[in-house]
Order: sequence, then structure tokens, then C-alpha cells
Amino acid sequence: MFRFTSKQKGSSELRRDIISGDWVVIATGRAKRPHEFAKTSSPTPVQPRKACPFEVLPKNVISLYALPDAERDEGWWVAAIPNKYPAFGHGICSVINRDGLYEVTDGAGFHEVVITRDHTRSIGQMKTDEVELILKVYQDRYLELAEDACVEYISIFHNHGSSAGASISHPHSQIIAIPVIPPDITRSLRGAREYASAHSSCVHCRIIHVELEQDIRVIYQNDAYVLLAPYASRTAFEMRIYPKTHRAHFEEIGDADRLFLADILHVAMAKLHKGLTNPDYNFFIHTAPTNDSTQFHYYHWHIEIIPKTVIWAGFEIGTGIEISTIAPESAAAFLRRVKA
Amino acid sequence: MFRFTSKQKGSSELRRDIISGDWVVIATGRAKRPHEFAKTSSPTPVQPRKACPFEVLPKNVISLYALPDAERDEGWWVAAIPNKYPAFGHGICSVINRDGLYEVTDGAGFHEVVITRDHTRSIGQMKTDEVELILKVYQDRYLELAEDACVEYISIFHNHGSSAGASISHPHSQIIAIPVIPPDITRSLRGAREYASAHSSCVHCRIIHVELEQDIRVIYQNDAYVLLAPYASRTAFEMRIYPKTHRAHFEEIGDADRLFLADILHVAMAKLHKGLTNPDYNFFIHTAPTNDSTQFHYYHWHIEIIPKTVIWAGFEIGTGIEISTIAPESAAAFLRRVKA
Repeated sequence: MFRFTSKQKGSSELRRDIISGDWVVIATGRAKRPHEFAKTSSPTPVQPRKACPFEVLPKNVISLYALPDAERDEGWWVAAIPNKYPAFGHGICSVINRDGLYEVTDGAGFHEVVITRDHTRSIGQMKTDEVELILKVYQDRYLELAEDACVEYISIFHNHGSSAGASISHPHSQIIAIPVIPPDITRSLRGAREYASAHSSCVHCRIIHVELEQDIRVIYQNDAYVLLAPYASRTAFEMRIYPKTHRAHFEEIGDADRLFLADILHVAMAKLHKGLTNPDYNFFIHTAPTNDSTQFHYYHWHIEIIPKTVIWAGFEIGTGIEISTIAPESAAAFLRRVKA
Repeated sequence: MFRFTSKQKGSSELRRDIISGDWVVIATGRAKRPHEFAKTSSPTPVQPRKACPFEVLPKNVISLYALPDAERDEGWWVAAIPNKYPAFGHGICSVINRDGLYEVTDGAGFHEVVITRDHTRSIGQMKTDEVELILKVYQDRYLELAEDACVEYISIFHNHGSSAGASISHPHSQIIAIPVIPPDITRSLRGAREYASAHSSCVHCRIIHVELEQDIRVIYQNDAYVLLAPYASRTAFEMRIYPKTHRAHFEEIGDADRLFLADILHVAMAKLHKGLTNPDYNFFIHTAPTNDSTQFHYYHWHIEIIPKTVIWAGFEIGTGIEISTIAPESAAAFLRRVKA
């Protein structure tokens, strides 16, 4: 054991992510108070309705969903449409070609957009049944795309605000179906598998159990889901939604379950919107790969919510270590008190 | 082998990074022409000299370096100073504590800033001997910090522009010495080690050999270094500087070598500055860990340069797959032609 002789001030701690094994820094020496994270810059401007590409449905709309109360949504509330500038599309899959020293394969896949009728209201400002219909579309599109023999993984994500990469302000989510298992999912699966074989239990189930017992990083819960600030949060106010029951696949949720999921996703987004004054954020679903009979049974699907409270710079990009300037325990205490 | 039946337009390819095994997307369907990447938004404003914390040296300056031609630099050209808001500082190292289910350790380390005398001129606008002195400071500070028994890894990086995380416009680099090996370095080391044991050669040496032979992704070279656009570029106009001679440790470069490094770093930054109209960027050194006798002999140190041409959104954060909208071959052809 060595003690630093550096006279440099400042204190921080390195917390290890139990699944990836990666370190994150909780820089308490640089810590801010929760209210200091509230957006002080002008919020992302709402683009004029006339110039919005999501105000008129394209001819090649994939599917339309209406709320039971048709008056509220003018015939539809959620639509799935193809992405006009897809990152994945035509191509031959399952063939990895040599390119001299390297390997390459076609970016074969699908890239869709899920839009809601309202031009401005984000998920935290919607009613729960409106959020539930978005989740229903996520699930239906997932199930259809997963049928394609080429699709190995489906990523469902949502960008809010220009600093979070949303080039269009009209609320929308994206679904990308790709022919490989992405590196972050591979690592997440490996961590869960290794924990399962060492401890004969699901690492996420263990986390949920301990977090509910300790109750210092839990932000909200209902019968089926829990919302918490992860112990090794990578960014300030990071949140995670876990189903309380072990399940590897998001797309298998039932109707009753989806209502609870809509409730907790709405609450998470409302707390973020109110507590931090409409910050930019990303959220995404981490679920098991599509071509799975039971081999990923050890996995536990979840949603990760990453507020854009910091810009990744040379240290983060060069090391993979992220620096969070508020302890998750403080972030959770703050968000627990925000009324959704 | 399956062929997609999706009628969705768009084409892209997935390229595999030979070291990490990770995939990146080269979205040729979304491709832009090189000049479209030139910064059209207003450049990061230069902060007023009066308000700049780097215009007056702090009392606890660590070291000062002058150019041989003293008139040019008013007594000093490069200074190393402690970071006023360090992400790492006092603490006990080499002890990982249990925190219930989790693991935590003190963020014990050092966090320094390397500043140059001039308030505005960035590395691409400096003279080569000015850049060389910066590299000399990097090396000297590295060698001193590496002496500390707690330090496992030293990250040297440079942020330019607010979108790249530089909160101060005055040109500066940072040096962070930490008590763990960061995840990205662990993965980079593992990839190099596995290639070395499978092929009995250094993967980076192999890449350099092939790239110099093919000469389609090489941007510039001198006697000792090569500048290239990596085959699996994560962002548009990503560049990498490799020493042509195999060496695991940056800090072992000799005086003659350092002059060649200053030349190629200056050229890289000048091409970026002129070609893309002063874009924001990060660069960082990837080198072997500090506590190394010879165990990392298979590693090959290098500099990675990441222009801020895109915002990471939900797909990138949720999958670890980055989408680049220009082929590295086109980026290299463009940058080759830019006069430095």
C-alpha cells in the first residue's frame, strides 16, 4: 500500500462497473450541487412546424397507431417510418469479406424512425397512455425486424436536444437493425455470463435486490420496474430502468407489463425535464440479441438514460474512463424529490 | 448467405477494427464531400486575454521551458502547472475497497496542464520548434510522474474548441496520471497481445507496413513517423500518427526522434486547421502502462487525432458502434492535398 505524496488538492473516487469491469470517476472534488446542472443555456430551439419533416407523413409510412380516444390524436398518435438517410440498408449479410489486412461486411439492415403526432411534447410531458403506445410500436417493429434472417441485433434509442445528436426537434425515436452484435452489447453479455457462471445468479437481479434493500440510489419504482442511479454512473444523473422480474428480452413484455414500463419511463423523463430544466439526453434499450433460443438466458434487459451534462473530451475518448461530477447517491436523492 | 429483401435505400459498410475487434460503420449512403465538413458555424470564440486563467502563471507552476531564441517567447514558451480543478489528487492507491456489492478505490493521482505562451496560436499554427518543446514537456512530465509508485497509467491529451470539451480557448494540453489501467488501454493491449501471439508480429507494425505499401490511407510521412487515416475510422477525418520503428513507450523517444514527431504533429494539425477551417478536435497519446519492465513489448505507441465532426447520439452510446460519413480513403486523399 502506497500513499501519494502529491500535494495536489482535489479528491475523487474510482468506481468499478460490476458488469463491464470498467472504471468510472466520481469527481467529488469537482462536484456541483444538483441545481447547478439545470440547463442555464437556452434550451434547444423548437424548429418551426412548417419546416419539420415529421409534420407530414411520408408516402412509405410503415405503420400507424391511434389512441383509443381518437379525437385526441387526429387519427394517429404514433407512426413508424423509414429513415430518409439510413445508416443501414441493402446488402448481403453473414459474409465477412477480406480487404487486405482487414475485414469488412455490408451495412445490411434497417433504419426506422418512430414519431409522435405532437410537434413539441417530449416523453416527460406526455400522458402515460401516449407513452405506452410508443412502447407498443417499439415492440411491434422489433418483433417484425427480428424475423429477418440477417438481423443479429436491434437498437432502439431516443435522442432529445441538439447536443444529444437530435437534428430534428420534433420528438422521435429510432430503430436500427444490424447484422452484427455491437461491441458494447458483446461486453455487456460477457460480463453477465461470467457473473452468472461464477455466482449462479443474474448480476442485474443481484444489483436490483441490493439496491432495493439499501434504497439510496433508487429514484422510483412500481410493481414491475425500478428506476435507479447506477453505482458506477458514467455521467451525472444517469438513470437505469430494470424490470424486477428476470427477463433477457425486451420484446417479450406483456400488455400489463408495458403499462408499468410506460409509467416508469414517463416518470423518469418528467423528473429529468423538471429537475434539470429540460436537459438534452439519450436513452436506449439494452436487450439480448435477436437470434437467441435460450443462450442469453443470463441477460437482463434494461433501459439506460444518459443526460447530456458533459462533453466527452480527450481523456474520456482516450481512456474510456468517464468523469461524473455528482455522486449517484446525491443525484438519486435530488431526483426522488422532483415531482413527476 | 442471405440477401436482404428490405427495399430501404442507402448503403454502408461495417469495418472491423483489427485490434479491438469492434465494428464501425462507414455510411457511404450518408456521405458528404470533404469540403462539406469544413466548419460553417462560427468558430469557438477566443476568450478575452484579460479573463484567461492561463495568461498569468500561478504561483505553484511546476516547470517552465524557454525556446533557444528567448526574444520570441518572453522568457518561457511552455509551462506545466497543476490543474486547478483536478479530477485526480490525494488518496490511497493499490487498495480496492468493497462497497457492498461493488468495488471502489481512491482517485489517487495527478492532473496537470501544459500551456503555451501564445493566447491564440494552436499547434497547427505554431513553428516546429515550438511544437517540439511541447513534446519535450509531455515527455519530462511523463517521466517524473511515472516515478510515483501509485501511477499505473498516464494519459496525455489535448482538447481544442468548446465542442471538443475545451472550456478555455487558450491552447493547452492535459496530463492525468491514474492508479489503474483504463478500459480502452486494457482492450488495446489485449488486442495487440492476442495478435502478437497468433502471428508472432506486432499488429501495428503490420498495419504500418501494409498502409505504406498500399498508400491509399497515408496522409504524410517523414523519416521516423507516418500519418494515416485508419481503415476502421470511428469519425470522419480521424488520423493516427505511428512511429515507424516498433516501440511500446512514448516516453523513450530520443531528441532526433522528437523533432520528427514535432514535424508530423504540426503537419497533421495544420492540415486539419486549413482543410476543415479550424474544426474542434481531441488528440491523445496511447502508450504502454508505466509499471512495465518488458511485459508490454508487443505494444506500439501512437497518437490518435479525433476531429469533432459528429455528435455521439443514442446509437453510438448504446452500441459502441460509431458512424463515419466519409470513407477514410477519401479523407486521406483530401488531407494529402491540403498544404501544411
